[in-house]
Amino acid sequence: MIKTPYLLFLGDAPDALAAKVAQGIRDWRPENAVGQFRLPGCKADLRLPDMSLEEARAAGAQTLVIGVANRGGVISDTWKEVLIDALRAGFDLASGLHTLLRDQPDLVEVAKAEGRSLHDVRIPTVKYPIADGKKRTGKRCLAVGTDCSAGKMYTALAMDAEMRKRGLKSSFRATGQTGILVTGEGVPLDAVIADFMAGSVEWLTPDNEPDHWDHIEGQGSLFHVSYSGVTMALIHGGQPDALILAHEPTRTHMRGLPDYPLPSLEQLRDTALPLARVANPNCQVVGISVNTAALDDAAAIDCLREIEDRMGLPAADPFRQGAGRLVDALEAL
Amino acid sequence: MIKTPYLLFLGDAPDALAAKVAQGIRDWRPENAVGQFRLPGCKADLRLPDMSLEEARAAGAQTLVIGVANRGGVISDTWKEVLIDALRAGFDLASGLHTLLRDQPDLVEVAKAEGRSLHDVRIPTVKYPIADGKKRTGKRCLAVGTDCSAGKMYTALAMDAEMRKRGLKSSFRATGQTGILVTGEGVPLDAVIADFMAGSVEWLTPDNEPDHWDHIEGQGSLFHVSYSGVTMALIHGGQPDALILAHEPTRTHMRGLPDYPLPSLEQLRDTALPLARVANPNCQVVGISVNTAALDDAAAIDCLREIEDRMGLPAADPFRQGAGRLVDALEAL
Repeated sequence: MIKTPYLLFLGDAPDALAAKVAQGIRDWRPENAVGQFRLPGCKADLRLPDMSLEEARAAGAQTLVIGVANRGGVISDTWKEVLIDALRAGFDLASGLHTLLRDQPDLVEVAKAEGRSLHDVRIPTVKYPIADGKKRTGKRCLAVGTDCSAGKMYTALAMDAEMRKRGLKSSFRATGQTGILVTGEGVPLDAVIADFMAGSVEWLTPDNEPDHWDHIEGQGSLFHVSYSGVTMALIHGGQPDALILAHEPTRTHMRGLPDYPLPSLEQLRDTALPLARVANPNCQVVGISVNTAALDDAAAIDCLREIEDRMGLPAADPFRQGAGRLVDALEAL
Repeated sequence: MIKTPYLLFLGDAPDALAAKVAQGIRDWRPENAVGQFRLPGCKADLRLPDMSLEEARAAGAQTLVIGVANRGGVISDTWKEVLIDALRAGFDLASGLHTLLRDQPDLVEVAKAEGRSLHDVRIPTVKYPIADGKKRTGKRCLAVGTDCSAGKMYTALAMDAEMRKRGLKSSFRATGQTGILVTGEGVPLDAVIADFMAGSVEWLTPDNEPDHWDHIEGQGSLFHVSYSGVTMALIHGGQPDALILAHEPTRTHMRGLPDYPLPSLEQLRDTALPLARVANPNCQVVGISVNTAALDDAAAIDCLREIEDRMGLPAADPFRQGAGRLVDALEAL
């Protein structure tokens, strides 16, 4: 568990996109983001107070989160200075970079001397069990995509936020590094050992109150041959009561696999639902989350209407329209 | 290289299936199995001579192989005593358990003092790539089961042996500790990091001659919630041309999951084939491998005939009858 709240380190981000991890934290857990720390030349701005390390500590920040993708996979000397100063100022550090904090001897040395923690959220820190398949109390919702990067994390975060707004019991359960940094905890599923994947998802979504919903962050796609095993483990470890189909309507082939066409939403439904019912015979497909970012307003509305008519299920773009209709569908279960 | 021959350690195996590692070695490399070592309460029996450590050493055994699987791969204190005695008696140790011999300080200490080797065959020794899904030359056959431990490895080993006997080009591709102990190479798939599972199977079954068959050792089951992600990665990384359905007809529920009924062979076919066709649109289900070990001869023949009539595919027990009919089906493709 990463200590909150955070000071968000944007470094020398070349553009806003490079700081999208920090942006996710600010958007979804604004109470965790007391300020931003920017180096000279930083082109990203989250419109949070710019703070020195000392100011952020005084404002209660516990952890400096690297909220920016770095260049060339190295932690630069400029960054390193700030990170070391932060450890000395009393911050823990958290990072989702491929380059691990724990592989930097100087950071390890200072962290040890200062009694601070280094969180590399790409690396599992828990010894997960093998899944036992036992029925758990509480409800679970999982988005499965026709492809990777179709908006599954966004959908889960938006549905969680909408349920909390309605005063319903809800948790977002992170399975990737951005989600883990947003919420401060979770399972870095793509880094888990094969045999323990489903067990890690069971561990992540334990028994809960009967009317509590876990919104489990989806990964990969049953139709993406590179990552389908991870998706399968989410479906069986998560034993979802509700599936949301996630889709990006303008994509012409599977992400990174030019020879692989996208499946239809019907194929996805007919593949995912029987598999989900192995672990939870009552599972239902309740709605469709469509990422319409590539469409203008009129085309997006047409697209959503066509999908809704064809599939007989509510179809919504949670970014454009909010997750209200998808949550309505969950509540109607 | 692991020194042969072996003394096969069955520990306190709760049933015969738990000793399938040892059984595989006995069946496929009988010349390497001089005896078995069993603890009180052991429910497995390979019908090899029961030997003390000293007797086995006198009979020439070089390595004590942990031939028993257990959930979670824990090395109990009772086992530990035997393993330490074995090192002192002059044995190397070989294990496919998740819990590593090399992570046991007492074993490491004694092995070092005695000049013995600890072989953990489950540790991946290669940095596997992420799967790229590119079509590979050569042919591949994969057995998928209604449940775990339904005879998939036996089927692949028997089909490989039969093809070689016929002078055909064939390789057995090990994906589990038994297969690796039997053949000396392979991918310990259940210990691979999630993101690299499918890539490791691509790596294991590379481009080959057009008329060469890889017999890929199956793992888990699409219907076994603890391990289905591993099975999915095999189906998509292996991009099989041919599927064999593997089944144990007397089982009443999924192994280790009392609340989960077995799927029918029809359900398995209708689930596995569309998923396999994502990676290889020409994939066919060519036959059914039935593990009839629990049936007498007459019942086995009845069972095979019933399945063959019902499914319209050759059904055979490769252990009881050889893999001839299954290889015929491959050759007919």
